[in-house]
Amino acid sequence: MTTNHQILLASRPEGEPTAANFKLVEVPLPSLQDGQVLVRNHFLSLDPYMRGRMNDSKSYAAPQPLNEVMIGGTAGEVVESRNAAFKAGDKVVGMGGWQEYVVVNAEERGALRKVDTTHIPLSAYLGAVGMPGVTAWYGLVKIIDPKPGETVVVSAASGAVGGAVGQLAKARGCRAVGLAGGPEKCAAVVNELGFDACIDYKAHPDLKSLSKALKEACPNGIDGYFENVGGMILDAVMLRSNAFARVALCGMIAGYNGEPIPMTMPQLLLTNRMKLEGFIVSEHMEVWPEALKELGTLVATGKFKYRETVAQGLASAPEAFLGLLKGRNFGKQLVNLI
Amino acid sequence: MTTNHQILLASRPEGEPTAANFKLVEVPLPSLQDGQVLVRNHFLSLDPYMRGRMNDSKSYAAPQPLNEVMIGGTAGEVVESRNAAFKAGDKVVGMGGWQEYVVVNAEERGALRKVDTTHIPLSAYLGAVGMPGVTAWYGLVKIIDPKPGETVVVSAASGAVGGAVGQLAKARGCRAVGLAGGPEKCAAVVNELGFDACIDYKAHPDLKSLSKALKEACPNGIDGYFENVGGMILDAVMLRSNAFARVALCGMIAGYNGEPIPMTMPQLLLTNRMKLEGFIVSEHMEVWPEALKELGTLVATGKFKYRETVAQGLASAPEAFLGLLKGRNFGKQLVNLI
Repeated sequence: MTTNHQILLASRPEGEPTAANFKLVEVPLPSLQDGQVLVRNHFLSLDPYMRGRMNDSKSYAAPQPLNEVMIGGTAGEVVESRNAAFKAGDKVVGMGGWQEYVVVNAEERGALRKVDTTHIPLSAYLGAVGMPGVTAWYGLVKIIDPKPGETVVVSAASGAVGGAVGQLAKARGCRAVGLAGGPEKCAAVVNELGFDACIDYKAHPDLKSLSKALKEACPNGIDGYFENVGGMILDAVMLRSNAFARVALCGMIAGYNGEPIPMTMPQLLLTNRMKLEGFIVSEHMEVWPEALKELGTLVATGKFKYRETVAQGLASAPEAFLGLLKGRNFGKQLVNLI
Repeated sequence: MTTNHQILLASRPEGEPTAANFKLVEVPLPSLQDGQVLVRNHFLSLDPYMRGRMNDSKSYAAPQPLNEVMIGGTAGEVVESRNAAFKAGDKVVGMGGWQEYVVVNAEERGALRKVDTTHIPLSAYLGAVGMPGVTAWYGLVKIIDPKPGETVVVSAASGAVGGAVGQLAKARGCRAVGLAGGPEKCAAVVNELGFDACIDYKAHPDLKSLSKALKEACPNGIDGYFENVGGMILDAVMLRSNAFARVALCGMIAGYNGEPIPMTMPQLLLTNRMKLEGFIVSEHMEVWPEALKELGTLVATGKFKYRETVAQGLASAPEAFLGLLKGRNFGKQLVNLI
């Protein structure tokens, strides 16, 4: 019987999380019951939403329990099955958590999904053709709903979600403008991902400077904004928004450690007649088939570019996650578990 | 030839406006050209939006020009007509401005509208069956879109717009909760206008206290919010909002003199998956017929209650307007010009 390694939440962070909030443990794997499937996780997805789950506060989802395996999306391979719908060798995605192996009650609807890796790499099902891609799709298509010729701005543009937002906007005939941290990320957002422009927010530490940079990058103003960051960046975008601009509010990573992130000029929402909507993609499962079809086709045909930052081995997951929160990754942050 | 009196914008306010920003002048009335109509204004409507027009800043509408007649909605009677569609004695509403008489180019679409005062008082066409009523209707029906049993909160509940929001919400099977300034206004909002509860915001000077009062008045949380005020009141409402709450952003009078009115916890928009939308009712003329039909029927059948605060004589308009900005009115603020 194989041994499993897991990472548990050992304690809740006060402010910024540290590696000490996590604990690596070794446990035996239980034997399978009828209906269950044993999956070896090849890739673990690290995502900003996990930071919120580490807190014991009211939010849209229950907190991550202490001393249990950290929640997380995974892609892997079935190694043993007592479920007729799965067989050893099947490539699957699910919420396997921060661990090398997972026993899945595969009869639970949506617990495990078989994927085809003929034209799409397994890891992409955790990024462009997975939750981050659908998140981008939902916010752009269902909230921003851009018209050809409009300007769409996205923060954290070099991240898995942000990169998808810009490319999906370009595919709809829009001007896509990103915000990212540092000249290297910005160059790649333009040259690799195909954005029209990308602003290095670190080079613009105050509202006036950032607002001016946005004016230059968005000569016709801003019609749609996909928000992953919050704080001053949102203020600056609102100052450059056109009448009837739409803001899809996906994340506000600037405030994830409890920092105040006030919106300083909410009156702009009125004078610009803006619409702002917060959303959680898992509450909109009805769009996943349509979104995954577009994203899968784009990836399989090479029309969609994405980067991955891959940490090696389960033990590296905490540091990789802390790096993600600080923007050290480029594109999708994964952990390779094999 | 009759003499006309007008109030002009003499200077732009720095911060809080004063009576010195206005100037009363006497001018001769010009003779009518073909197509024109001379209207004697019986009532002038005073509205918070006028404060924004006094500034020389970018907004959804052009600033009020200096040394010209202040913009304003009016209801009156045709005294002379060189337009086949109107005759002396017709009751009409239009944007006659702060003056006793107005010459209207009645061929311009929407410049002058005949109204029937058989069952609806002329002044109501400036309030419940006019722009304030349609404003309430649009924000409630088109943005908040409340379901029976939901809780709808409105600030400035004793104002012309706020009073209509609550009554339209009650007509849709909702719990209606108001916010108003002072125990007398609050008592009237409940006893006269039929709200389920009304909170005296002046009795709750800090966020914690106001949030607690909202919790008591809204035991099932808040599903819809109609915002006329902004600032701490919006923060407190967001703290008590349910998942998928909708905010119709109509006005933010707390910031009209340039005061900062930050939204301190925009992350609640995300954790509560809220939708917030700013709107200007004049940009949604397509809803006016439907809205006015419902409002007119409610008023004509006595099912809709409203109060008016009426100042006497054109010269009283500046003080009445300054009082409106400070919440001294109850219900629709009018000036009787005859």
